[in-house]
Amino acid sequence: MINKRKICVVITARPSYSRIRSALQAIEEHSELELQLVIAGSALLDRYGNAADFIRKDGFEAAAKVYMVLEGENPTTMAKTTGIGLMELTNVFYNLQPDAVITIADRFETIATSIAAAYQNIPLVHIQGGEVTGSIDEKVRHANTKLADIHLVSNEEARERVIRLGEDPEMVINTGCPSIDLASEIEDEEKLNFDPLEKYGGVGKNINWKDGYLVVMQHPVTSEYEKAREHIMETLYAVRDSGIPAFWFWPNVDAGSDGTSNGIRTFREQQNPENIHFFKNMDSLDFLRLLRHSKMIIGNSSAGIRECSYLGVPAIDIGSRQHRRLKAENVIHSGYDRKEILSKINELAESGSFASSTIYGKGDSGKRIADILAKIELRSHKSIQY
Amino acid sequence: MINKRKICVVITARPSYSRIRSALQAIEEHSELELQLVIAGSALLDRYGNAADFIRKDGFEAAAKVYMVLEGENPTTMAKTTGIGLMELTNVFYNLQPDAVITIADRFETIATSIAAAYQNIPLVHIQGGEVTGSIDEKVRHANTKLADIHLVSNEEARERVIRLGEDPEMVINTGCPSIDLASEIEDEEKLNFDPLEKYGGVGKNINWKDGYLVVMQHPVTSEYEKAREHIMETLYAVRDSGIPAFWFWPNVDAGSDGTSNGIRTFREQQNPENIHFFKNMDSLDFLRLLRHSKMIIGNSSAGIRECSYLGVPAIDIGSRQHRRLKAENVIHSGYDRKEILSKINELAESGSFASSTIYGKGDSGKRIADILAKIELRSHKSIQY
Amino acid sequence: MINKRKICVVITARPSYSRIRSALQAIEEHSELELQLVIAGSALLDRYGNAADFIRKDGFEAAAKVYMVLEGENPTTMAKTTGIGLMELTNVFYNLQPDAVITIADRFETIATSIAAAYQNIPLVHIQGGEVTGSIDEKVRHANTKLADIHLVSNEEARERVIRLGEDPEMVINTGCPSIDLASEIEDEEKLNFDPLEKYGGVGKNINWKDGYLVVMQHPVTSEYEKAREHIMETLYAVRDSGIPAFWFWPNVDAGSDGTSNGIRTFREQQNPENIHFFKNMDSLDFLRLLRHSKMIIGNSSAGIRECSYLGVPAIDIGSRQHRRLKAENVIHSGYDRKEILSKINELAESGSFASSTIYGKGDSGKRIADILAKIELRSHKSIQY
Amino acid sequence: MINKRKICVVITARPSYSRIRSALQAIEEHSELELQLVIAGSALLDRYGNAADFIRKDGFEAAAKVYMVLEGENPTTMAKTTGIGLMELTNVFYNLQPDAVITIADRFETIATSIAAAYQNIPLVHIQGGEVTGSIDEKVRHANTKLADIHLVSNEEARERVIRLGEDPEMVINTGCPSIDLASEIEDEEKLNFDPLEKYGGVGKNINWKDGYLVVMQHPVTSEYEKAREHIMETLYAVRDSGIPAFWFWPNVDAGSDGTSNGIRTFREQQNPENIHFFKNMDSLDFLRLLRHSKMIIGNSSAGIRECSYLGVPAIDIGSRQHRRLKAENVIHSGYDRKEILSKINELAESGSFASSTIYGKGDSGKRIADILAKIELRSHKSIQY
Repeated sequence: MINKRKICVVITARPSYSRIRSALQAIEEHSELELQLVIAGSALLDRYGNAADFIRKDGFEAAAKVYMVLEGENPTTMAKTTGIGLMELTNVFYNLQPDAVITIADRFETIATSIAAAYQNIPLVHIQGGEVTGSIDEKVRHANTKLADIHLVSNEEARERVIRLGEDPEMVINTGCPSIDLASEIEDEEKLNFDPLEKYGGVGKNINWKDGYLVVMQHPVTSEYEKAREHIMETLYAVRDSGIPAFWFWPNVDAGSDGTSNGIRTFREQQNPENIHFFKNMDSLDFLRLLRHSKMIIGNSSAGIRECSYLGVPAIDIGSRQHRRLKAENVIHSGYDRKEILSKINELAESGSFASSTIYGKGDSGKRIADILAKIELRSHKSIQY
Repeated sequence: MINKRKICVVITARPSYSRIRSALQAIEEHSELELQLVIAGSALLDRYGNAADFIRKDGFEAAAKVYMVLEGENPTTMAKTTGIGLMELTNVFYNLQPDAVITIADRFETIATSIAAAYQNIPLVHIQGGEVTGSIDEKVRHANTKLADIHLVSNEEARERVIRLGEDPEMVINTGCPSIDLASEIEDEEKLNFDPLEKYGGVGKNINWKDGYLVVMQHPVTSEYEKAREHIMETLYAVRDSGIPAFWFWPNVDAGSDGTSNGIRTFREQQNPENIHFFKNMDSLDFLRLLRHSKMIIGNSSAGIRECSYLGVPAIDIGSRQHRRLKAENVIHSGYDRKEILSKINELAESGSFASSTIYGKGDSGKRIADILAKIELRSHKSIQY
Repeated sequence: MINKRKICVVITARPSYSRIRSALQAIEEHSELELQLVIAGSALLDRYGNAADFIRKDGFEAAAKVYMVLEGENPTTMAKTTGIGLMELTNVFYNLQPDAVITIADRFETIATSIAAAYQNIPLVHIQGGEVTGSIDEKVRHANTKLADIHLVSNEEARERVIRLGEDPEMVINTGCPSIDLASEIEDEEKLNFDPLEKYGGVGKNINWKDGYLVVMQHPVTSEYEKAREHIMETLYAVRDSGIPAFWFWPNVDAGSDGTSNGIRTFREQQNPENIHFFKNMDSLDFLRLLRHSKMIIGNSSAGIRECSYLGVPAIDIGSRQHRRLKAENVIHSGYDRKEILSKINELAESGSFASSTIYGKGDSGKRIADILAKIELRSHKSIQY
Repeated sequence: MINKRKICVVITARPSYSRIRSALQAIEEHSELELQLVIAGSALLDRYGNAADFIRKDGFEAAAKVYMVLEGENPTTMAKTTGIGLMELTNVFYNLQPDAVITIADRFETIATSIAAAYQNIPLVHIQGGEVTGSIDEKVRHANTKLADIHLVSNEEARERVIRLGEDPEMVINTGCPSIDLASEIEDEEKLNFDPLEKYGGVGKNINWKDGYLVVMQHPVTSEYEKAREHIMETLYAVRDSGIPAFWFWPNVDAGSDGTSNGIRTFREQQNPENIHFFKNMDSLDFLRLLRHSKMIIGNSSAGIRECSYLGVPAIDIGSRQHRRLKAENVIHSGYDRKEILSKINELAESGSFASSTIYGKGDSGKRIADILAKIELRSHKSIQY
């Protein structure tokens, strides 16, 4: 009988789930691995799209659930949320006794996962380290790298950066990004095979999307949380003024999301825009389908940088949130000003789609991650390389 | 009227206090700075030497105190302690509203200070980053570096390492180690000006220290906490067998300190050693005096590496805890084996003292730190340099 | 110089503030008392009416603020919120060192205040114990009584009940309810002296309230939180069908409030009711003015039982939340069924106002509370009387 | 197939375990019940006798373990410990989904169990409510009663008191105290069947116990924690001066235990008493055997009141801790003064043993508790009876 390695994955938010789903599946299907799935933070909350529902529908079972999000959506509650998560996740790991813990990317609460594992001498695997952005994510990501033992990065540039950070090159592997795996599943579909309005309801006008539409997803930037309301307003005006039908997605839980949400609500009440329809959430695959057949994505979601590079969908990247992420040619940058955004919308609306890029992987990341987890030496101590 | 910069320093343990004391004084005396002192963790506990008492006697006032040490002294309680600290320190900073927060070195709970400040966009100053050791401290220290905005390191090698970690060179300054400041205060005293037995009591035999004595201080190593009892026993036997009078200091709070404490207690009961006297704690200056006039220090305390380099006192560094720290010629390494330790004791007992080294500073670190804090640009965001 | 007694009052929600405001003022103005005001929980949150804003506008200063509400609005997060509050409030009291702590009534998180004080041997004053209701409040209130040393109750029946619970009769005093103090301030105003729509905005239709209107405020009942959505729907239909203009107030933070909020949102979107206007919040005095000149209040708010008894305003009390509260003749009860509610609306719409009752006090409660706090023996230990 | 009721029992300390052990066994053996055992607090800590070890040796398996004791042993850390426990136990119950939770007696942290269950609408069973003592326990016990749905009390007087507290008489049942069950197991043994010194080691002189000995167990009293050191010293002198061989047990974890421990340590070092031997811990049955054959028990342990009433062993009850507990004729009270204690030792040393009393049960409590748990209506809401 094989003694399976127990791999504990902590999902704390809807976008993290989308990003890791194919790896979860590969872990579950791997004969030498056992998946221990922990659902925590905003992934349990209706206000943030309740990823737990999607996870259950996808057939995964939770080994533990942890409520940990403190209300307030400001820097103070972000820090306290992380403290609560650290206390609770420590207890969860203590009871589950995993052979390795996976922490995903750079959301503020991911460092709770990292510390709870590292301090308990459980080998820590960090997915998607080595990238560069603005805001608090930048500090969190590299701190996660320094707490982690094994680094499964999503691109070559990230791999080199993690090694420059003093990590053992043998423990830094470019697996590509599992989010590309999902994109690869639907890239050949020739048209949108569901009606978003019918399937997901949402609120706002019933736009006519069949002749082309925008997708918008703009999260608050932590370090500028008071400006969140102002920034989102600019994008709202630009999209409204473009006149192109648009599907707009609600932001995730971060300090300032209240500013963003508030801005959206106010704009809706006051302007009642004819060409914008709002969604809180969507199944990951359907969201990729929506992107795949859109004119472009607007905002600061990583989907514009990652999945859209592979899908060849144009992306307007607004503001500092994705600053210095590795980008393919599908991405153009814009400031927060509504005029600049509008002019770039018009520019890209003409350009059509781009060639597919594989800088973030070829669609086999989940499987590669599982294979590595089954074979790599698991150790929980290290020393900087220089 | 000058608007003083509020500098919040969090002390979580007795040794951290010794290490920062001269900087606290310099901050308090600086006309452009205001000190906000937070005493937390084991610094409040009798079992670990109650640094709070020494702090008060030294004339510093606490702006807030935080009990946060969870009992158990194992990896699980270390992680949970950090979570509790993160929740509470966040609240403390939220109420004190400092202009900058100082986190010290690499104890496991220092990352709570770092996160509480970084997530609340308060500029974070890390003291004594860039060094290298074994055990969990190694992860904590470099994670602190990645969360911090300003790095005040204690030696040139550390400065180069922090810069290689991707930090802005302008924000990485070698101030030397403030612990050397204390050492410089007493380096000219020609003999021990107090009787340790009389002044500090302690337990064990009343040894005759006047013709030369050893100082021993050996902390458990987190990653090997089950071996703590075994390791301390080896050192106890070696010191006992040397026959040289020895002052032995109780370990600090870490996972495994119970193993260490237990080993010491058992050894005392069973062997009742003639030549060893035990202390729980000592005023920092007196401790340096004791070192200054000793034959050598034995164990794995950083005092052997730092203060003793400046004082020229021989040091036997046992095991992995100070692995890869920058060391002057006063330090020789030993494994945990009692025979090896004994032979090195005998070797160093002959060698006499060494020339003073300034690799860890010249005695002006506290003042330099205060001057920098008064003038440096305070910012709470950064991006990796490569 | 008088050594003032430091009285620490913890406000955790908007309704608690309204209920205690006159006592806060009396404490602050009392020559032998010093007020230490702690604002915590939902009182800090925009989603629940941000009582902190009103408190500041009223001229009170916070000695400390504590974020403690965990998101999720279910029984699990209620319990964890209480645990977080207990940790943090303990620290706050430890630093403020009050001579007495006041805990208010029976919200779930008030037991955190009680324990934090009782365990630290700080005399605990419980306001508004001895009443009877359904749901978890019932357990919380009597547990608060058993943790408290001094009981300032709001009516004679409550006084007798607290004594039957084994408390020392000398420590149980009927001060009346401070909420009546506010009501007494405005009872003589002959008509509504502000335009609610203009002054508070809100959402929904601009109803014509000048010829009479309803006020509705219905909170979820903890023990039935899954039914919250269904219950609120029944009331919404009844009020809509009455055709009488109505001001509807958003519920407070409790398990299930999401069900209630969700019900309200859904109803608004689907039914777009002509005669209902929605508010999130209102200054306490303005709210009383609104009640004073309304046709009746509907729902399960304690305002219908307390302030409206004094103001003589008819009240329809729906469901189990106020079950067994002492009620004057202005209150009639209704089940959750829309037909029953509608028929009682029609019945009361005819009845006109009632005579003022003083079962909950005469308008001098705040002053009486302050006087007692200045003189009563403060002790933190007790034994049951039988 | 029978759907077993899941009964979650939370053990937070060594003495609670002794008190509930026979009920645990009866629950585990009952065909309609499933035991979910949670081990938490000081029950996990070596310093307090590590009940977890005894539990495991007795064959019980833990469903979850929770570290929650904050270091400091003062009122502040007691309150925070309770907050930590509340957060964690909430999560544990949320994952275990028990049909009922049992909270035991009146230790400060038991209210965490009570709130975590009550707020999550899980029927709460309180064991050993309705008794009366001094100190914080008094508040905790009655607050537990007001949070609980079912009351299994240990004597008739307690039953009447719980009913007077407003509880439904059908939900208040006198089962006797399970600790008597253990006592009944060994009451017929004619002499001590093990050598305490050999079996348990301990520290201090090797006393000659065969001709009669005392047992001493004195815990700090929370409300007087600064006096703990002074009080224990008085008892130490009295026992020393009696000249009778004595087995002395270390105190449990409470605010002030440091004062008590410190007093014991100091006394030992200074006086090195000839007739006292110290134990940290003992298997529950062996402890009862030790009591059964002793001359008397001295201190303030509940064992003197409960088990010794059944065993007929004389008890000197010192100070306020057991004030107003129901007592049989075996107990005489003493103040803290060493002369008074010594004179009562001499008095009782003459008296010999007492007749067995069944005021705390007949030895079938565990079984009765299990039977009730299998049959009683489980509900989580109640209203005061008057």
